[in-house]
Amino acid sequence: MKKFTAVSDVQDVNQLVDEALTLKQHPFQHSIANKTIGLIFFNPSLRTRMSTQKAAFNLGLHVMVLNIDKDGWKIEFEDGAVMDSGAQEHIKDAAKIMGLYCDVLGVRTFAGLKNRDDDYNEIVLQQFIQHADIPVFSLESATRHPLQSLADMMTIKAQGITRPKVVLTWAPHPRALPQAVPNSFLEWVTKTDAEVHTAFPKGYALAPQFLDGVKVHHDQNEALENADIVYAKNWSSYTAYGQTPKVSEDWTITSESMAPTRQAGFMHCLPIRRNVIASDAVIDQSLVYQQAKNREYSAQLILKKLLQNG
Amino acid sequence: MKKFTAVSDVQDVNQLVDEALTLKQHPFQHSIANKTIGLIFFNPSLRTRMSTQKAAFNLGLHVMVLNIDKDGWKIEFEDGAVMDSGAQEHIKDAAKIMGLYCDVLGVRTFAGLKNRDDDYNEIVLQQFIQHADIPVFSLESATRHPLQSLADMMTIKAQGITRPKVVLTWAPHPRALPQAVPNSFLEWVTKTDAEVHTAFPKGYALAPQFLDGVKVHHDQNEALENADIVYAKNWSSYTAYGQTPKVSEDWTITSESMAPTRQAGFMHCLPIRRNVIASDAVIDQSLVYQQAKNREYSAQLILKKLLQNG
Amino acid sequence: MKKFTAVSDVQDVNQLVDEALTLKQHPFQHSIANKTIGLIFFNPSLRTRMSTQKAAFNLGLHVMVLNIDKDGWKIEFEDGAVMDSGAQEHIKDAAKIMGLYCDVLGVRTFAGLKNRDDDYNEIVLQQFIQHADIPVFSLESATRHPLQSLADMMTIKAQGITRPKVVLTWAPHPRALPQAVPNSFLEWVTKTDAEVHTAFPKGYALAPQFLDGVKVHHDQNEALENADIVYAKNWSSYTAYGQTPKVSEDWTITSESMAPTRQAGFMHCLPIRRNVIASDAVIDQSLVYQQAKNREYSAQLILKKLLQNG
Repeated sequence: MKKFTAVSDVQDVNQLVDEALTLKQHPFQHSIANKTIGLIFFNPSLRTRMSTQKAAFNLGLHVMVLNIDKDGWKIEFEDGAVMDSGAQEHIKDAAKIMGLYCDVLGVRTFAGLKNRDDDYNEIVLQQFIQHADIPVFSLESATRHPLQSLADMMTIKAQGITRPKVVLTWAPHPRALPQAVPNSFLEWVTKTDAEVHTAFPKGYALAPQFLDGVKVHHDQNEALENADIVYAKNWSSYTAYGQTPKVSEDWTITSESMAPTRQAGFMHCLPIRRNVIASDAVIDQSLVYQQAKNREYSAQLILKKLLQNG
Repeated sequence: MKKFTAVSDVQDVNQLVDEALTLKQHPFQHSIANKTIGLIFFNPSLRTRMSTQKAAFNLGLHVMVLNIDKDGWKIEFEDGAVMDSGAQEHIKDAAKIMGLYCDVLGVRTFAGLKNRDDDYNEIVLQQFIQHADIPVFSLESATRHPLQSLADMMTIKAQGITRPKVVLTWAPHPRALPQAVPNSFLEWVTKTDAEVHTAFPKGYALAPQFLDGVKVHHDQNEALENADIVYAKNWSSYTAYGQTPKVSEDWTITSESMAPTRQAGFMHCLPIRRNVIASDAVIDQSLVYQQAKNREYSAQLILKKLLQNG
Repeated sequence: MKKFTAVSDVQDVNQLVDEALTLKQHPFQHSIANKTIGLIFFNPSLRTRMSTQKAAFNLGLHVMVLNIDKDGWKIEFEDGAVMDSGAQEHIKDAAKIMGLYCDVLGVRTFAGLKNRDDDYNEIVLQQFIQHADIPVFSLESATRHPLQSLADMMTIKAQGITRPKVVLTWAPHPRALPQAVPNSFLEWVTKTDAEVHTAFPKGYALAPQFLDGVKVHHDQNEALENADIVYAKNWSSYTAYGQTPKVSEDWTITSESMAPTRQAGFMHCLPIRRNVIASDAVIDQSLVYQQAKNREYSAQLILKKLLQNG
């Protein structure tokens, strides 16, 4: 594996999930000597920051963490720019340099939600891949969050349900959020044996390529009926890009919302706005901590593959 | 030991101090494999940050440092809150997640000095203890700083004085400071064989539970007479909570203030405002660097006990 | 070696460069056990931060990184100051404490460009050296950047040119920058067998002590003729200290500027303002990444010498 940024970087999703669940049984390996991982953050991070460090420790790697905007220099992304104003270093040089000191590089770069083409072309992540000369993986990019998705697939698989009905539902949030987590979840879960549904208010359709093979609902109750897994997440509009069209119905997941399911497991990538996305009662007996713990092993497996080029 | 947040978490203070002084002779142990410590800072830190990392290195631990407000998300502390405004993650979830990736967690959370009940109930630290499911220790909390206090006890013990007269004295400072260090010092030193005095201007009495067994003075000169140890520290008012009532006398410790002592050792937890808390002359021939160095070993002993559950 | 802050700390520059190029062949050594390096940043850093960490990993050191102004306390530098306003900790105490927990200390402290005497007396770095009681090295100080210079000498030496003509040229930049890199480059390169030239607009002469043995030009074209190495860098005025007198000619290095050279290698310490200091075409086929990669080995060699006191 040369990079890990989308499900398309993976040959066989189901085999990868099985490998990750196996690794989880015996994570301490220290099998890789003299390798250094760089974790580059353009945005805040708690789970990703900690779980990826932990994964690196499990493998015996050295870790460098860089909050690039605070610790380093302001970065220019435009090719050919005359850099006579704010930006102090071009991504060409920054990424190249990081590649000189590290053996693998993780990058977190959220969508700006201003320019859809820039975000969906992944201009930041792609420049790291182009210039770093070492394997690059996503710590959540503008349009995807594959380490989260792999952890999510592990969590669903561990429920032991054959052909589970999995429902991704939009839920409310006070701010405009990227589509990375729902996009990513759908492109992974549709590669498993799950029957995949999604529910969102009108105006919140995800990009068409992520809805392939997914049954779409605009009525949350209808979607949740007989669900085995309910994955809640907020996102802003893809069509009216980055906007948050007004929603009149109540999309918060409560015990009542969960009643028509088959005692479904509730999932969310965290951080979660309690009593906005879902009620305390739903979250407190959910799968969210299993998901979070699986982040350690999804990161560890991917790091191992990237460093062993396996 | 399951947690280390107050002297009440310790069975035998004098034995713990002896153990720490013994450990100081041979600190490099690397006896604990595959364990990770998380250091969570809500507030600035230099000594605590560095000494606790060093202690972890001495034990062979992996270390993750998180400046939670800058690196991660804004935290909600109220149970049942509808999180539709600023806070992005509930402490329930943040603490639980940190507990998934770490084996022991240190937390620095200063008093807000707005609401005395909130501070004295240690609402932040207690939620970490409640939700993290791993041993938690204080890197200074709203009302106590036990790693400092253990280092302080080591420093006093190393003076080799039987039944030393120890005087904690208030000293001036331009800002309102918490009562954590003086509270903690008193609850530890009263467990040793010391004769414990404290001096502070009227209006600056500490909470009654910390003054038990302590002789109180309002005249600094009187208190310092024949002292073996002078521990200076500023704190804001407990009764007029967080306020700084005007003080007319000069409480700065100078060579003149130290004259009536038995050539007392001067102590302070640092950082110290030079020529405000105490004069350069006093600080430059003091015990403050011994105290700071002992922080490494107090942290190492506590980490060892927390991880070995000894 | 007790400190590494200027070329005067080195006995034999050419031998040091050879040692560094040899070390580069087999960097993984892990030869130094139980040692901790502290990296203290008063200013942003990417290359220095990452390359020095990597060097420490190569040696098996433990690393603590402190962004002192964000992670710790506001520092007072004036001896005898009455600290009743902003500064929370005196450099005397901060440096002393860091020396208690670390075995070697790197410090980055840029010139303030306000007071030339303060900058050229290196008041921050000198206080670290005075108070830390352990070896101290520069991660770029007010007037010098020796780890960069050693890496630069390695890069020039690796070109294999006998008595190369090396030209340091001023180049444009939108902000006032310190003189540390050009000062340092000149005091190192004049110790090698190079024929050293420099070109800068009138008003931009460096401090006289750095121009000793250097042929000065005010015409960039003239200076670059038959050059083997072109080192570009911006700096602000030393005489009108920290000012940026207007420059009417175009000093940006382009392919045209490089034409009269002997296909010279282009060098810059990075970060570089592309199409301001030099054009994309020049940078893209330059030695800048070799320089950056050599930072890892220059740091490693110096760390080894400081820790082995060799």
